[in-house]
Amino acid sequence: MQRTAAELAHLLEGTLDGDAAVEVNQLSKIEEGVKGGITFLANMDYEGHLYTTAASVAVVAKAFQPTRALPQGLTLIRVTDPYAAFGKLLELVSHEEGRASGIHPTAIIEPGAELGAECSVGPYVVIEAGSRIGRGTELRAHVHIGRNVTVGERCVFHSGVHVMDRCVVGKECVLHPRVVVGADGFGFAPQQDDTYKKVPQTGNVIIGDRCEIGAGTTIDRATLGATRLEEGVKLDNLIQVAHNVTIGAHTVIAAQTGIAGSTHIGARCMIGGQVGIAGHLRIADGVRIAAQTGIAASITREDAVYQGTPALPIKDFQKQQLAVRKMAREDLLKRVTHLEQQLNQLRS
Amino acid sequence: MQRTAAELAHLLEGTLDGDAAVEVNQLSKIEEGVKGGITFLANMDYEGHLYTTAASVAVVAKAFQPTRALPQGLTLIRVTDPYAAFGKLLELVSHEEGRASGIHPTAIIEPGAELGAECSVGPYVVIEAGSRIGRGTELRAHVHIGRNVTVGERCVFHSGVHVMDRCVVGKECVLHPRVVVGADGFGFAPQQDDTYKKVPQTGNVIIGDRCEIGAGTTIDRATLGATRLEEGVKLDNLIQVAHNVTIGAHTVIAAQTGIAGSTHIGARCMIGGQVGIAGHLRIADGVRIAAQTGIAASITREDAVYQGTPALPIKDFQKQQLAVRKMAREDLLKRVTHLEQQLNQLRS
Amino acid sequence: MQRTAAELAHLLEGTLDGDAAVEVNQLSKIEEGVKGGITFLANMDYEGHLYTTAASVAVVAKAFQPTRALPQGLTLIRVTDPYAAFGKLLELVSHEEGRASGIHPTAIIEPGAELGAECSVGPYVVIEAGSRIGRGTELRAHVHIGRNVTVGERCVFHSGVHVMDRCVVGKECVLHPRVVVGADGFGFAPQQDDTYKKVPQTGNVIIGDRCEIGAGTTIDRATLGATRLEEGVKLDNLIQVAHNVTIGAHTVIAAQTGIAGSTHIGARCMIGGQVGIAGHLRIADGVRIAAQTGIAASITREDAVYQGTPALPIKDFQKQQLAVRKMAREDLLKRVTHLEQQLNQLRS
Repeated sequence: MQRTAAELAHLLEGTLDGDAAVEVNQLSKIEEGVKGGITFLANMDYEGHLYTTAASVAVVAKAFQPTRALPQGLTLIRVTDPYAAFGKLLELVSHEEGRASGIHPTAIIEPGAELGAECSVGPYVVIEAGSRIGRGTELRAHVHIGRNVTVGERCVFHSGVHVMDRCVVGKECVLHPRVVVGADGFGFAPQQDDTYKKVPQTGNVIIGDRCEIGAGTTIDRATLGATRLEEGVKLDNLIQVAHNVTIGAHTVIAAQTGIAGSTHIGARCMIGGQVGIAGHLRIADGVRIAAQTGIAASITREDAVYQGTPALPIKDFQKQQLAVRKMAREDLLKRVTHLEQQLNQLRS
Repeated sequence: MQRTAAELAHLLEGTLDGDAAVEVNQLSKIEEGVKGGITFLANMDYEGHLYTTAASVAVVAKAFQPTRALPQGLTLIRVTDPYAAFGKLLELVSHEEGRASGIHPTAIIEPGAELGAECSVGPYVVIEAGSRIGRGTELRAHVHIGRNVTVGERCVFHSGVHVMDRCVVGKECVLHPRVVVGADGFGFAPQQDDTYKKVPQTGNVIIGDRCEIGAGTTIDRATLGATRLEEGVKLDNLIQVAHNVTIGAHTVIAAQTGIAGSTHIGARCMIGGQVGIAGHLRIADGVRIAAQTGIAASITREDAVYQGTPALPIKDFQKQQLAVRKMAREDLLKRVTHLEQQLNQLRS
Repeated sequence: MQRTAAELAHLLEGTLDGDAAVEVNQLSKIEEGVKGGITFLANMDYEGHLYTTAASVAVVAKAFQPTRALPQGLTLIRVTDPYAAFGKLLELVSHEEGRASGIHPTAIIEPGAELGAECSVGPYVVIEAGSRIGRGTELRAHVHIGRNVTVGERCVFHSGVHVMDRCVVGKECVLHPRVVVGADGFGFAPQQDDTYKKVPQTGNVIIGDRCEIGAGTTIDRATLGATRLEEGVKLDNLIQVAHNVTIGAHTVIAAQTGIAGSTHIGARCMIGGQVGIAGHLRIADGVRIAAQTGIAASITREDAVYQGTPALPIKDFQKQQLAVRKMAREDLLKRVTHLEQQLNQLRS
């Protein structure tokens, strides 16, 4: 970005207080402001930084009254909601970072693969036969699309993403680097001689519109049928989604969580990091699960909140934790032994 | 696949009940049957779906008697074991998905690397000097084989697999996308000035025949000697195997488990997901470990079953969990305090 | 390596006992010695293996006196510290495995990217516009450097590493295969209609000098400002570092640990594997955290040692664990119930 304060005030529907012509070329936190930077003050706990910031422009609330002298040359843009205004600036910057459309000469697009208009295909991308990529989708360097894959419009697949044969990705999805969609599920049938025989994994993965999937996350194909992410699901990094799992719309899951085979997660759930969810369970809509929790049984009550291993409703878990800590600290065992001795004396 | 019902009945050694000429081109679950699909009924809990399925063909038990009217035009194939028959169909489909043999013109095979007959090498693969790839092995797009690597016959390495210098992979192994074999182990010697000095990791990784390794899993090279997977080991996704670990034959490990350095896991073990096993331990043959367990001490009894952090024999763990839950719920602390007060009154 | 015993004795400042001309070409553990191998005896528990080793050369302490007959033809090199001497040999071997400098003809270096002297750039590497790579840095096959990235001198980025736009890596860093630096942080603002809106992640990642990052580890860019690793940080495999995290100098973290957003980890910390650390916390310098621990609150005391979920000072945790185990085993609940009954009898 390279904009004047006046242009930005206009964009943010704010009023200017200072030099309309000053140019800014980057965003910064208020405590790390630099010349040529624009910052914002939304949380008044950070007000002190405003009086010492080196930033050229600060976005503040309409009603903001400085309680000390502002830095020489700091221009203010006054807006209704500084936090929302800063969000707009963030989007402005991020939109400017997309790659130009066009197909790199080293991209390999097998005969029978189809690309929509305005796609961007980076160097060393491989798209195998029978796959269709929607209009305006961007595939960065080293992406690999297998056979008969369908990808919707306006997706961004970052470097090294791999979507395997017959999987389907909706529109406006973002897949971060090294995501693997459609590797074989972990299915092996034990044999009499202690060896295992692979159960072929012939299903696929179907990902809805507007999903975002974090770096290094793996989503396995179904044994039969589909592993499904409904629309708007957001997965963080290094998550494992096993075969035949379903994740409901607008559910968000933090990093390093694992979901075992055939489990159905409801819509609008919020699941913390490093959670483990066993196979063949049902988690109701709107359930929230604290980080590192281990779920070994279905949760049927909507909007329930769970924690612990094995998991309990969060209040029960916290009560139990507290009770255990107290009992351990009080050396209850000694007290009971002492009671028994006294009682025996009394009875004898 | 594109087969007639008659061809499939022959293949499955079954008898036909319906239209021998109907063509099927895909497998489906009974509850998701589509025209042109073949499905199966093994678990009678799903019988209801048979009467409404849109599939063209269903595989059922020889003795099966419909209790309602079957869908118009549904052809049955009757077999001794519908589940086993469906397994055969799964294999049929999966066999048809392999890549043709041949070396893509963009594959870089350094002088001094050797490929057996009938190998398939995908686009942008790199095979460095001194490596040998066995007959019939398939390396998909973006695979990287370092120097002096040995890979056996009939392996499949999916897209982006990286096997580093001097590692050895047996025959008929499947490595899923983004597996890393042979990165440096995590070895650093603390120095007087609080910095660390790298301990060079000069060993390798040796993987036995018929192992399968899930997407994103990392297996580090030994400091000295070898990190070893014996034959038939099956690892799920995003597992960490540290330097100098040994995993015995036909052991299976679920996703996101981590095994610290120099630990020896026995043969025929079954280890759940998100398990952590500390370094320098020995786990006996046939041991089973529940998901999310933390193993901090060796397990010497064969076929033992462990759970919890720190881990206990599973029955002891479950008894302990139950006792703790009960004690916490009963507010034992209050009851003991009350007993003490009563006893004091009695004694005074 | 290919050296004579005499050359190695000279290198290790040791004295020779045997055939000065014998050639060795590999290192081996004492229990796995092979002809042409050099091994060492530092820990006398392994002395027995010395009398049966097939190695050609063994490094032993100056004062070592064999208590049995040595194998025919075994040459000894006597040194002050056999363990340190073997470390030197390890380094010798590892130095010999680097790639020659030079730029592979398939590497794509966009106009405006700059490479220092003596860089090595492997096949199918992509370096985008505006990036600068320091002198002597090695980028192995399939590495992807985004736009305006800065990489210091003498780094090694292994196959498939991806450093995204505007990130900064110091000098002498080692990034193992499939490391992702600078993917978007996990930031989504909940909307009234239950959907989420992406919070653009416009910061970067700044990694100090001499850091080492394990295979498959992901380090997300900051929402604003930088996610930072200070100098000398060592991360193992499959670790998740979320947006705006700071990790202090010379901190080491074992595999599969996750650190949530905006947490500051101090310098010289040692963090075990599979640890989870919640967001917005501060961990003091020198803190040690046991494997699988869950940290939900800041740790302000330097050099403290924590364990458990939720985490406690390690002694408190172990005491609590012991007390719980004892109470559960003793069936305290029954004993208290029995006491209550007896007391009631006494009182009636």
